Amino acid sequence: MYQETHTRSVVKAVSWRVAGTLATSVIVYVFTRRLDIALLAGGVEAVVKLAIYYVHERIWDRIHIGRRPITPAVLWFTGLSGAGKTTLSIALVDELRRRNLRVEHLDGDTIRHIFPKTGFSREEREEHIKRVAYLASRLEKNGVFVVVSLISPYEASRDFARGICENFFEIYLSTPLGECERRDPKGLYRKARSGEVKDFTGITAPYEPPKKPELTIDTSRLSIEQATRDVMAALRKYL
Amino acid sequence: MYQETHTRSVVKAVSWRVAGTLATSVIVYVFTRRLDIALLAGGVEAVVKLAIYYVHERIWDRIHIGRRPITPAVLWFTGLSGAGKTTLSIALVDELRRRNLRVEHLDGDTIRHIFPKTGFSREEREEHIKRVAYLASRLEKNGVFVVVSLISPYEASRDFARGICENFFEIYLSTPLGECERRDPKGLYRKARSGEVKDFTGITAPYEPPKKPELTIDTSRLSIEQATRDVMAALRKYL
Repeated sequence: MYQETHTRSVVKAVSWRVAGTLATSVIVYVFTRRLDIALLAGGVEAVVKLAIYYVHERIWDRIHIGRRPITPAVLWFTGLSGAGKTTLSIALVDELRRRNLRVEHLDGDTIRHIFPKTGFSREEREEHIKRVAYLASRLEKNGVFVVVSLISPYEASRDFARGICENFFEIYLSTPLGECERRDPKGLYRKARSGEVKDFTGITAPYEPPKKPELTIDTSRLSIEQATRDVMAALRKYL
Repeated sequence: MYQETHTRSVVKAVSWRVAGTLATSVIVYVFTRRLDIALLAGGVEAVVKLAIYYVHERIWDRIHIGRRPITPAVLWFTGLSGAGKTTLSIALVDELRRRNLRVEHLDGDTIRHIFPKTGFSREEREEHIKRVAYLASRLEKNGVFVVVSLISPYEASRDFARGICENFFEIYLSTPLGECERRDPKGLYRKARSGEVKDFTGITAPYEPPKKPELTIDTSRLSIEQATRDVMAALRKYL
């Protein structure tokens, strides 16, 4: 959010004057064929109109006609560990920032890092998901695009998120378990198989796939670039 | 956050033209004393400059000179139950909104209502305070003024909040316990005294007063109006 400073209005007035006075002098010259009158009229106009332009700008700063408030959305990535949520969401955040939008990335792992006491039982996960959803909804309400990357395995808490956000856009990364386990970027599947990590989604804890996601992407079939393009195309109505 | 639409630029161009052409015609008339030349010059100028003005506006939409980004702050009210946190924070939110700022009010009771499982043990309270602080910091980072009203009795978690926010402004409501208990707006002091409510700050749980708050207000000595004025005066550098 910006404030139009008085300096900006003054600089705009001067910049307009250069363009405007030049045009006026040419026009007056064409009609009178007298250079002295053309230049004098231009000169007087320049001084008088600088003041009028400045006042005009200040008045318009208070008028909201044609200032379109940006309608943000909550872009919620759900899927198994290793499905590509973080990778894809970072690419999406970059794309949105490039369009001069305010964007906040809420990544499950990052938030858990700040709140290390959050556990992995069903109840604790549901509370965690709901808290992230609440955070997302407050940001969205204040004009921020929110990209969430969170396993969020439970339908109920994702529905809670959908309910409290204005424009909820669920992107289900349907990358198959086998492919996710093969990638195993954090070595967690190995630890889950050996029993070292408990309550691991897809292995020892359930994942409830979304019934009606706004978009489904299988990252075993698409490059990151293609997947990002697909998401951006689907989001066109918000941009 | 707003986008300057093309419509806005067109409407501004027309509105400027009315002011500008009137001035030009008068100036040309003063120099030539010929009404026909004055009106004709004004007419031609109007058409040519409409186009130039529109282009001028679109170019300036891409220039950021003199657009001052608003520096928001986190205004954190701490104090006993009944000290006046919610009342004062609502008055403050109104004042800030009146200045066309983006404002979010994070009230402890409201958030607990959404997350009813949050308990009142020291550990649970500290986690709760930290979560609210994290939420506040994300909003602040995205240009939103955040008003927090939360008993937040523990120095450590308030320090956590101070640490993660950019502009942290702590307002300690030092209203004495006796006065808070006399007010007892929610009947909680009575319940705490009878043992019906446990871990109640000031009675059966500690309150650690801030060591260096940005502002201290005793609402037993000031009206809401006066207290709001004091807060607004102290916040002048952010507004």
